[in-house]
Amino acid sequence: MSEKNLVENMITSTQVFKGKLLQIFSDEVSLPNGNTAIREYNKHFGAVCIIPITDDGQVILERQFRYPIHEVITEIPAGKLDSPDEDPLSAAKRELREETGYIANTWIHLGLFMGAAAYSNEKINMYLAKDLVRGERELDDDEFLDVFTMPLEEAVREVMDGKIADGKTIAAVLKANELMKKS
Amino acid sequence: MSEKNLVENMITSTQVFKGKLLQIFSDEVSLPNGNTAIREYNKHFGAVCIIPITDDGQVILERQFRYPIHEVITEIPAGKLDSPDEDPLSAAKRELREETGYIANTWIHLGLFMGAAAYSNEKINMYLAKDLVRGERELDDDEFLDVFTMPLEEAVREVMDGKIADGKTIAAVLKANELMKKS
Repeated sequence: MSEKNLVENMITSTQVFKGKLLQIFSDEVSLPNGNTAIREYNKHFGAVCIIPITDDGQVILERQFRYPIHEVITEIPAGKLDSPDEDPLSAAKRELREETGYIANTWIHLGLFMGAAAYSNEKINMYLAKDLVRGERELDDDEFLDVFTMPLEEAVREVMDGKIADGKTIAAVLKANELMKKS
Repeated sequence: MSEKNLVENMITSTQVFKGKLLQIFSDEVSLPNGNTAIREYNKHFGAVCIIPITDDGQVILERQFRYPIHEVITEIPAGKLDSPDEDPLSAAKRELREETGYIANTWIHLGLFMGAAAYSNEKINMYLAKDLVRGERELDDDEFLDVFTMPLEEAVREVMDGKIADGKTIAAVLKANELMKKS
């Protein structure tokens, strides 16, 4: 099916906030029925997240304070691309090393993750990292996170119980679990 | 563990964009090491999403144009709360009926989903809806989406293949699949 009946087209585009992190736009668009509407959204470079799993089935996780929700939550390692052109796999290797110290010898792409397609164009490339070798982490001075491990089955349980509520972490834990069952 | 070593505290908070959809704030915060930093984020009421599964194992899905990414994507039914106080389950029942026409007699809470905790406080309550009865959908005049069905196993395959990349849909499909296996 062509799905032309669903498409919205830009009439005007205005940047309404230029931040350090957020680039907010407000666009006027024409709807499929000819009416107009406003679409507000964040323009994002893209990001990566990594579910690192050790040879004995432990997931490397992080506890991190997320200011918008004022909570310390459990997440897999993740980070923004340094530029729109950065290769996502290189970014994933960098983030894994910097945040956890681990280097992985096997990388499996787990697909894309869009966390808020209604108001952000952020696409996160998800990876499963295996054959891990431990090194030293290199956090920025102003970066604070605790690294810990948990058996994959326990991570699945915490996802199913709703204890783990970070979207990309839910997706990566359950995808990795599906994959591991098949291999 | 206390995790006080991770917490950031607000010094000032400024609303930098007041939109129809987005409410963007830029806060100055104090970091655990005493330095200061800027945190930019969207304040959101919260939302709901629903994975409706028919008695014969078909998932009710939608094809919807998402302007920020300029693509028509596959998603489960979802919507914002009408107000911060709206009961999420009532909102889920409303969204399911309006977008798909279906009414469900069994509702199972699948936990919370946070799609972009770094820059949005949006929390989505996820539900599995079963024992479905078909009715008439009631879209707003300016709302455009196609509803279709797909067997749950096929939805799992599309999630694993990366064809389905909408975050809440990945999470809900794999959570429902885990749950169904146990029942």
